[in-house]
Amino acid sequence: MSKNLTTRSEDYSKWYNELVVKADLAENSGVRGCMVIKPYGYAIWEKMQAELDRMFKETGHQNAYFPLFVPKSMFEAEEKNAEGFAKECAIVTHYRLKNDPDKPGKLMVDPNAKLEEELIVRPTSEAIIWSTYKGWVQSYRDLPLLINQWANVVRWEMRTRLFLRTAEFLWQEGHTAHATKAEAVEESEKMMHVYAEFAENFMAIPVVKGVKTETERFAGAEETYCIEALMQDGKALQAGTSHFLGQNFAKAFDVKFANAEGKQEHVWGTSWGVSTRLMGALVMTHSDDQGLVLPPNLAPIQVVIVPIYKTDEQLTAITAEVDVLVKAFKKLNISVKYDNRTTQKPGFKFAEWELKGVPVRIAVGPKDLENGTFEVARRDTLTKEIVSKDEIVAYITDLLAQIQIDLFDKALNYRNTHITEVNSFDEFKHVLDTKGGFVSAHWDGTAATEEKIKDLTKATIRCIPLDRVEESGSCVFTGGESVGRVLFAKAY
Amino acid sequence: MSKNLTTRSEDYSKWYNELVVKADLAENSGVRGCMVIKPYGYAIWEKMQAELDRMFKETGHQNAYFPLFVPKSMFEAEEKNAEGFAKECAIVTHYRLKNDPDKPGKLMVDPNAKLEEELIVRPTSEAIIWSTYKGWVQSYRDLPLLINQWANVVRWEMRTRLFLRTAEFLWQEGHTAHATKAEAVEESEKMMHVYAEFAENFMAIPVVKGVKTETERFAGAEETYCIEALMQDGKALQAGTSHFLGQNFAKAFDVKFANAEGKQEHVWGTSWGVSTRLMGALVMTHSDDQGLVLPPNLAPIQVVIVPIYKTDEQLTAITAEVDVLVKAFKKLNISVKYDNRTTQKPGFKFAEWELKGVPVRIAVGPKDLENGTFEVARRDTLTKEIVSKDEIVAYITDLLAQIQIDLFDKALNYRNTHITEVNSFDEFKHVLDTKGGFVSAHWDGTAATEEKIKDLTKATIRCIPLDRVEESGSCVFTGGESVGRVLFAKAY
Repeated sequence: MSKNLTTRSEDYSKWYNELVVKADLAENSGVRGCMVIKPYGYAIWEKMQAELDRMFKETGHQNAYFPLFVPKSMFEAEEKNAEGFAKECAIVTHYRLKNDPDKPGKLMVDPNAKLEEELIVRPTSEAIIWSTYKGWVQSYRDLPLLINQWANVVRWEMRTRLFLRTAEFLWQEGHTAHATKAEAVEESEKMMHVYAEFAENFMAIPVVKGVKTETERFAGAEETYCIEALMQDGKALQAGTSHFLGQNFAKAFDVKFANAEGKQEHVWGTSWGVSTRLMGALVMTHSDDQGLVLPPNLAPIQVVIVPIYKTDEQLTAITAEVDVLVKAFKKLNISVKYDNRTTQKPGFKFAEWELKGVPVRIAVGPKDLENGTFEVARRDTLTKEIVSKDEIVAYITDLLAQIQIDLFDKALNYRNTHITEVNSFDEFKHVLDTKGGFVSAHWDGTAATEEKIKDLTKATIRCIPLDRVEESGSCVFTGGESVGRVLFAKAY
Repeated sequence: MSKNLTTRSEDYSKWYNELVVKADLAENSGVRGCMVIKPYGYAIWEKMQAELDRMFKETGHQNAYFPLFVPKSMFEAEEKNAEGFAKECAIVTHYRLKNDPDKPGKLMVDPNAKLEEELIVRPTSEAIIWSTYKGWVQSYRDLPLLINQWANVVRWEMRTRLFLRTAEFLWQEGHTAHATKAEAVEESEKMMHVYAEFAENFMAIPVVKGVKTETERFAGAEETYCIEALMQDGKALQAGTSHFLGQNFAKAFDVKFANAEGKQEHVWGTSWGVSTRLMGALVMTHSDDQGLVLPPNLAPIQVVIVPIYKTDEQLTAITAEVDVLVKAFKKLNISVKYDNRTTQKPGFKFAEWELKGVPVRIAVGPKDLENGTFEVARRDTLTKEIVSKDEIVAYITDLLAQIQIDLFDKALNYRNTHITEVNSFDEFKHVLDTKGGFVSAHWDGTAATEEKIKDLTKATIRCIPLDRVEESGSCVFTGGESVGRVLFAKAY
C-alpha cells in the first residue's frame, strides 16, 4: 500500500483532506456539499454517540425525534434565529415529479404539486421543538423538559470541507425548558461541562471553556457557552456549544406555564449541540504524517495482530498462539483484529493500519514463537517493544490506557504553549502570523473593534474564558478599557 | 388520570390513534404528515434499534451514512425505482430565504437562489448508495459490501397515520453488493430471516415469511421477501422487506468488478429495511382497551413499584423496603421505576402505568410490610398475585420471561386461527367481511386477477408463503390453474 500522504508541513489543508479520504473516514458524494461517512469513519462516530448518549442520560435527558421540515411561518417566528439561518437553508417547494414530456425517460418537477407553504429543511430545530413544547407545558409540574435528539441538519454552505463544514451533517441537539432563569443557566453551563469532559477524557482533546461575544453568539440566544480546541496548525475549532436562550423562543412560540402560585409565566430555554465536526477535530488534533492517530477510547480496532510467516505451517502455529490472545482481549472488551489476509504482505498491512490509526500493533513471527514473545508497536510514538507472552495481556491493557493519557498530554502541551499573551497589536499580528494558536489579549468589549481586528487579521474572538483573570488593561487595538483578556484565533 | 380510551370494538382505528397519543408514544406535529416521536415512544424505538443493530453486526454488516438528498439526474437513473417513487417525493428547489419586501418581518424564497438541479429528499437510498458503490468496487476482492444505514426518509403520503404512514419516518436500510447472484439471493433471504427472528423473539409478533407478487414488489427489485404480521382487527401489516435487486442498480449506476479471471461483470445487489412502522405493529398486536401492552424486551420500564400509604412514616418504611428491591432488580438489568410521586394517588398511578403498558406492577402498603409480601400485577392478563418477599426477585425474573412468551403465544394463536382456507370467491368475500385475517386461496398467478380481486374486496396478496404446500388447484376467482395457495388480506 502506497500512502502518498501529503505531509502536514507541505500543506496542512491538503494533508487533512487526503487523510480523511485515504483512512476511509469519509468522502465527497455526488451531491453538492454532502459527504458520505464511510463505515470506518462511522464506527468512530458511533463510539462518540454512545458515550455522549450515556452522559446525556446520566444527566437526566431523554431522546425524542422531531420533524425534518419546518414550515416557513414557523421558521420565521423567532426573528433573530430566522435571520441567522435564512441565508443558508434548503427549501422544499414541491412534492411530486412527473415524466418530462420533452425528454423521454427523464423526470421534471410537477408544477401542479407546489406546496401551499414552503418547508425549510431544519438547519437547527428550535422552531419546530418550541412549537411542540407549547402543547407539552401547562404547569410548573411539566417542567423541566430535558430532551435530546440525534438528527441530520442542513445548512447550505458554499465552501464545504469533509466533516468541518458540510451542507448536511449529523449532530445531537439538546432542547430544554425550565421554570426559572437560574435553572436554565445552570443547565446550559452543565452541558458545556459535559462536552468538555467528553472532549478531554474521551477524545483526548483539551478544550478551553468560555462564552462567546455577542457577535459570535447563536442566533436567538442570550448567552452562548462553548468549548474551543486548538488544531496542530494553530487554528482554533469550536467543538461544541451550549446556549442559554432566555425566554426568546418561549415568547416566539407562546410557551407559558402556571407557576406554583397559578400565575402564567414564559418558560426559560436552552439548546446545545455537537456534530460530526468533532471527527475533524479528532483528525487534526492527534494525527501525523503517517496517517490517523486514534485515542484508544475511539478506535474501532484497538489492537491489530499481524502474522509474519513464510510457510503455511508457520501461519498455523502463529494462528494457534494468536487465537489465545484474541480470546483474552475480547474478554477484557479490547477490540482486536487478527489480520490474517493471505493476499497482502506484512509491510502493506503495517502501512494500512498505521494509516487507519490503530493504537497498537502486535506482530508475531516464528522467532517470536520460539522466544515466547510478541513485537508491540505504538501508533502514536511509532516505537516498538518486545514483550513476553506471559505479560502481553496486562501490558497491552496498560498501554492502551497510557496512550489515551499520552495523547491528551501531548495535545495539552501543544495547546498550552500556543496560548500567547500579547500587549500590542503589532505583537498580536506577529504571533498570529508566525506561531498561530490562541492570542490572549485585552479587548475593549465592542463589536466594532472585534470586527476591525477580524478584517485586518482574520482572527476572531473564540471565547471569553471562564477561568480568566479579572485584570484591568487596555484594548490591544484601541487602547480602550478592558476588564480581562479574551482569546483570539484564526478558526475553522 | 382519566383514560377515556375508545375501545377496540367501538372503533379500532380511533382506539389506535388515541392510544398512540395518550400513551406518549407520538403525536402529530405542526408539519403536515410528520410526527413527533415522544420520549416514551422513542425509548421503545431505541430498544428496537439496539437489538437490530446487534443482529446486523453479528451477520457481518457495518453502518455508514449517505446524503439526505438525491440530485434529480441520479434519482431517475434506475427507471423503475424512479417511477415508483416520483409521485411522492419532496423536492428542494432553492437554498436561501430573504426578507419579503412586501411583508415586514416575513421571509420569502429568494428567487435568485434557485438550484441548477433539483434535489429529491431521499424516499429510499438505492440511487445515492449505488452511485457511491461505483467508486468502491473495482475487483472481486472489494466484495461483498455489507452496509446498513440508520436514517430518516420522506415519502409524501396524502393520508397519514402516526407510525403507520407518515411523510417522514425513521428506518434502517441495508444495501449490499455481491459478486454472484447466488450470494445476493442468500443475503436477501438471510435478512428476511433476521427480521422474522427479531419480530417473533424480540417483539413477540408472529410473522409469515414469503415473497411478494410482481405487483407488490419493490420498485427496481427482482424479488421482494417480506414478513407479514396480523393485527387484532384482522388486517395485515407488512413488517419488513428484503429485496433481491438483481443487477438493476449496478447496471443503472455502472457498478462493475473484475472477477477472479479479470473479466468485468456487473455487481449483484440487495436492500432491506424496517421502519418506525414497527411501532404501529407493536401497538396493534398486543395492546388492549386499558392501553398499551408491551413485551418485556421492549418496555422502557419493565417493573413499576407503587407505594400505598397514608402517613409519612409508612412511606419511609415502604421506601426502605423498596430500595432493597430496586437494587436487586438493577443488578439483574431489570429496568424498574419507583413511582413515589406525592402529587398523585395510587389509583391514578395504576391507570397511568397500565396505559403505558409497563409489564409488571408491584404495589406495597403497610399490610404487605407486616406480612412480608408484595402485590404483583401483570399488565397483559390484568391479574394479581401476592408474592412473599423472599421469592419476589426470582418471581419477577421468571414472570418477565413468561410474559414475553405468553404475548407471543397469544398473538400466534390469534394469527393461526385467522388464516382461513377458502375455495370459492363467495367464501373468500364472506371470510374477509366477517372474520378478516389472512385468506388462503388459490390464485392463477396473473396481475389482472390480483387487481380485480383488490378492486372488489380491497384485499391484496400479502405474500406467497415460503412454507406453502405445493398443490394444484383452481384460482378462487377465475378458476385458472394454480400451483399453491397464497395469502390475501386487507392491509395497513
